[in-house]
Amino acid sequence: MSTTYGLHRSLLLNRSGTAIRFENRSRTWGELGDRVARLAGALRSLGVARGDRVAVLMLNQDRYLELYLAVAWLGAVIVPLNIRWSALENEDAIRDCGPKILVADAAFAAMANQLAGKIGSIRLVYADDAPNPAGSAGMLDFEDLLAKAPPIEDAQVPDSELCGIFYTGGTTGRSKGVMLSHGNLMSNSRNMLAEGLVSKRGTYLHAAPMFHLADVAATYVHFLAGSSHGIVRMFTPEATAQAIEKFKITETLLVPTMIQMLVDHPSLAKHDVSSLQNVLYGASPISEAVLDRAMAKLPHTKFQQAYGMTELSPCATILPWEDHIGEGRAKGRHRSGGRPTYMVDVRIVDGDDKPVPRGTVGEIVARGETVMMGYWERPEETARAVVDGWMHTGDGGYMDEDGYVYIVDRIKDMIVSGGENVYSAEVENCIAQHSAVAQCAVIGIPSEQWGEQVHAVVMRKPGAEVMPEDIIAFCKQRIAGYKCPRSVKIQDEPLPLSGAGKILKRDLRAPYWEGKTCAVN
Amino acid sequence: MSTTYGLHRSLLLNRSGTAIRFENRSRTWGELGDRVARLAGALRSLGVARGDRVAVLMLNQDRYLELYLAVAWLGAVIVPLNIRWSALENEDAIRDCGPKILVADAAFAAMANQLAGKIGSIRLVYADDAPNPAGSAGMLDFEDLLAKAPPIEDAQVPDSELCGIFYTGGTTGRSKGVMLSHGNLMSNSRNMLAEGLVSKRGTYLHAAPMFHLADVAATYVHFLAGSSHGIVRMFTPEATAQAIEKFKITETLLVPTMIQMLVDHPSLAKHDVSSLQNVLYGASPISEAVLDRAMAKLPHTKFQQAYGMTELSPCATILPWEDHIGEGRAKGRHRSGGRPTYMVDVRIVDGDDKPVPRGTVGEIVARGETVMMGYWERPEETARAVVDGWMHTGDGGYMDEDGYVYIVDRIKDMIVSGGENVYSAEVENCIAQHSAVAQCAVIGIPSEQWGEQVHAVVMRKPGAEVMPEDIIAFCKQRIAGYKCPRSVKIQDEPLPLSGAGKILKRDLRAPYWEGKTCAVN
Repeated sequence: MSTTYGLHRSLLLNRSGTAIRFENRSRTWGELGDRVARLAGALRSLGVARGDRVAVLMLNQDRYLELYLAVAWLGAVIVPLNIRWSALENEDAIRDCGPKILVADAAFAAMANQLAGKIGSIRLVYADDAPNPAGSAGMLDFEDLLAKAPPIEDAQVPDSELCGIFYTGGTTGRSKGVMLSHGNLMSNSRNMLAEGLVSKRGTYLHAAPMFHLADVAATYVHFLAGSSHGIVRMFTPEATAQAIEKFKITETLLVPTMIQMLVDHPSLAKHDVSSLQNVLYGASPISEAVLDRAMAKLPHTKFQQAYGMTELSPCATILPWEDHIGEGRAKGRHRSGGRPTYMVDVRIVDGDDKPVPRGTVGEIVARGETVMMGYWERPEETARAVVDGWMHTGDGGYMDEDGYVYIVDRIKDMIVSGGENVYSAEVENCIAQHSAVAQCAVIGIPSEQWGEQVHAVVMRKPGAEVMPEDIIAFCKQRIAGYKCPRSVKIQDEPLPLSGAGKILKRDLRAPYWEGKTCAVN
Repeated sequence: MSTTYGLHRSLLLNRSGTAIRFENRSRTWGELGDRVARLAGALRSLGVARGDRVAVLMLNQDRYLELYLAVAWLGAVIVPLNIRWSALENEDAIRDCGPKILVADAAFAAMANQLAGKIGSIRLVYADDAPNPAGSAGMLDFEDLLAKAPPIEDAQVPDSELCGIFYTGGTTGRSKGVMLSHGNLMSNSRNMLAEGLVSKRGTYLHAAPMFHLADVAATYVHFLAGSSHGIVRMFTPEATAQAIEKFKITETLLVPTMIQMLVDHPSLAKHDVSSLQNVLYGASPISEAVLDRAMAKLPHTKFQQAYGMTELSPCATILPWEDHIGEGRAKGRHRSGGRPTYMVDVRIVDGDDKPVPRGTVGEIVARGETVMMGYWERPEETARAVVDGWMHTGDGGYMDEDGYVYIVDRIKDMIVSGGENVYSAEVENCIAQHSAVAQCAVIGIPSEQWGEQVHAVVMRKPGAEVMPEDIIAFCKQRIAGYKCPRSVKIQDEPLPLSGAGKILKRDLRAPYWEGKTCAVN
């Protein structure tokens, strides 16, 4: 079924219930359904046909959700652009998939004008509450279009049709457009409901950026579940804590960096956040120290981990709350990415694509209805990534006897030092337990003696005193000597983050490897 | 995916966990997987190919579950025969779909021999622990076959292939073979998991007959969920209460008649049944009086209703526990069949298939991945039942503003008395509240004056004294006069039941309508 199915279900079951709350605006499902049918009509009147692309470059707001629904309603294809990318990077994506329309908000109207000036053949739509800071010349107004357009019928496109193109990259080289069908995203949504990750009649907070597939996937899950939606324009610990109280949020999705920022922020204590039942985290591993602080500060909240990637729509494994506590924690399961979710086959394979025994590290591969249609106009790269239906994640890991998958590292993040493999996640997990450490990343840097040597970049907590040798000594008490950093950089600035909130190790590595051959980047 | 998917998942995640317990036997998932692969091999060696039918005529036992899995593993088609049918009725079904194999247990070995004698071209397999009471001549032995056969690989048939043929009928005229695909049954299973009807790592009790689609569907749900299975050979209140205690059952499926028998039976108090968390009921409406007694006797148990039919694999709507209590009950929602489940569109239509307004009674129709492939070799009947993808249930009902579907009656069970429509469920619900009533059914019988008149058949509780005029007076205080029975038959014998535990109203009506034209039968 089309990803609009959840909207139809809410129109049938809960027409007068609250669909969306953003700042001081609130809309019922009936109102949302009407706006979506008219927005789809407006896009069609602008010449957008079934299969055409509509790009969006916006911070979070209610109209972003309306675009996800209306573009699907029309049978067109949504292309959410990365708000952290430069104009050049976004130009690349636009040239790659050729959208007819680009929708931008106040924050990105200027960049949109700049892009249209270079590309020429794209219509601009301005969607925000504030007057257009770039001036109204050349940009159509979202609300004007909506007011004039007649509602149209849902195209009700089948499972197999393309729903959206999601550009990945940043940490992994030149970006590629991941094509996900309606069936891909609906299948993931059904799997997440089956996992019991969603409260009935809950309210989901869009705190992570709405362009990113983690929040996109949650959007579809909560459309299917019939949840109400609360939105903050951009994640800050303060705005998130405030929104949880104001909208009585029951669920949200955060990347570990956001969890760390939220639980370490004084504003958390100033708001009643006891409504928050479920936090799904993913996109990168969480350190035990951050998890412990999160559990202490949010005692009513269950944390659940999803592991996956955009190409898997995105969930491959789920680690439920039960495995973060009690017996599960005693067995160390909280350090795993969880077990394969429903309807997704997960295997660990060697370099010849042969399954390895339990406990042996190999590449994590996954198969099922959630495997992407392919990379937009890149059949060779698609063929390399998806072999016999198995998506090759590029992540290294092993599976234990009970089916728990332990992600040891991005294969390309593995550091080979003196012939030994060092998985940076393990070292980071150790360093993060040091009381003076706010954030850390471990990378390989060139070493004449060792090929690569283990190097740590540490952001210290405000006012904390810590020296590189303290970190090294701390590690030596806890992990094998060859895994311990040989050098540590201590700083007060946060580490550079990707749009998904992942630490940009590529940027950390760059100065060390300039002019050198880097096997691991 | 094939319906064997859940077995593979349990083999991956829980190989040494308990899969099945029956009487004093227990098998792990690893053992079950091995037996299934060998049973599939045995069937193939008997000449069963992909798409061939394998019929089963047995009371409940562990080998019945192995057959469901092994026949799917081979890519063949299971045909579970009705244990309450006569040899003639089963002969009809076998001649209809032409199975190569008929598997029977001790209870049905004699009937199987009789059938084979008449049909000729069918191989018999005997599957039970006791020696074959019909003698071993002409019947292969299940365990012998299994011991000799090499395991084979799962055919992993796609969603679209036929999984089983399920004969319906009894209450609705000549039986038809409902064809359900693997995708039909997997889709229903995913919907039930999404509804949250199943505990994680629970144990499901097969108390209802395993040939019947209600238990069959639950079987696939619990395979997907990875639940453990407990089995009683045949439902009795005593055996069920005992099994709940012995196997620490967390979930089961019962038809209302079984719930009533269980909660009114003294054995319930003799066993620790506090492990029972979820009871799904369906197949026929439950009276409020029985529901109240059930809730009083099983205070730890949540009751949830599913409404549907074999042709819908089978669930169309779900009434969760929350609607049986508190606000839901205050709004009368416990009298509804619940709301459309995920991925199933439900509408109420008039005689021209046009949707009717909320609150208006019409025919309930449903559309989605769970609609059957069709009736075996009956294209005309299929075309009449499924129009533009909408399965016509033959049930009358209405939908309220919040999407709750109230099933007023089988359309053909509606009584037209003096020009007024009387829905027998409403009258039965009233009579069931009388303290002397154990069971009741309301039918239309011929009346010169009214066309039809409302007639009640009542089974009184042991020792209770009640006269027809008491029942009529009781109704007159509670429902409109035209709905009250004009005649009441009081008896001590239970009412006749179909294989599904539905009261056989056809049999109750027959003596009254003999030689007369009956518009409603």
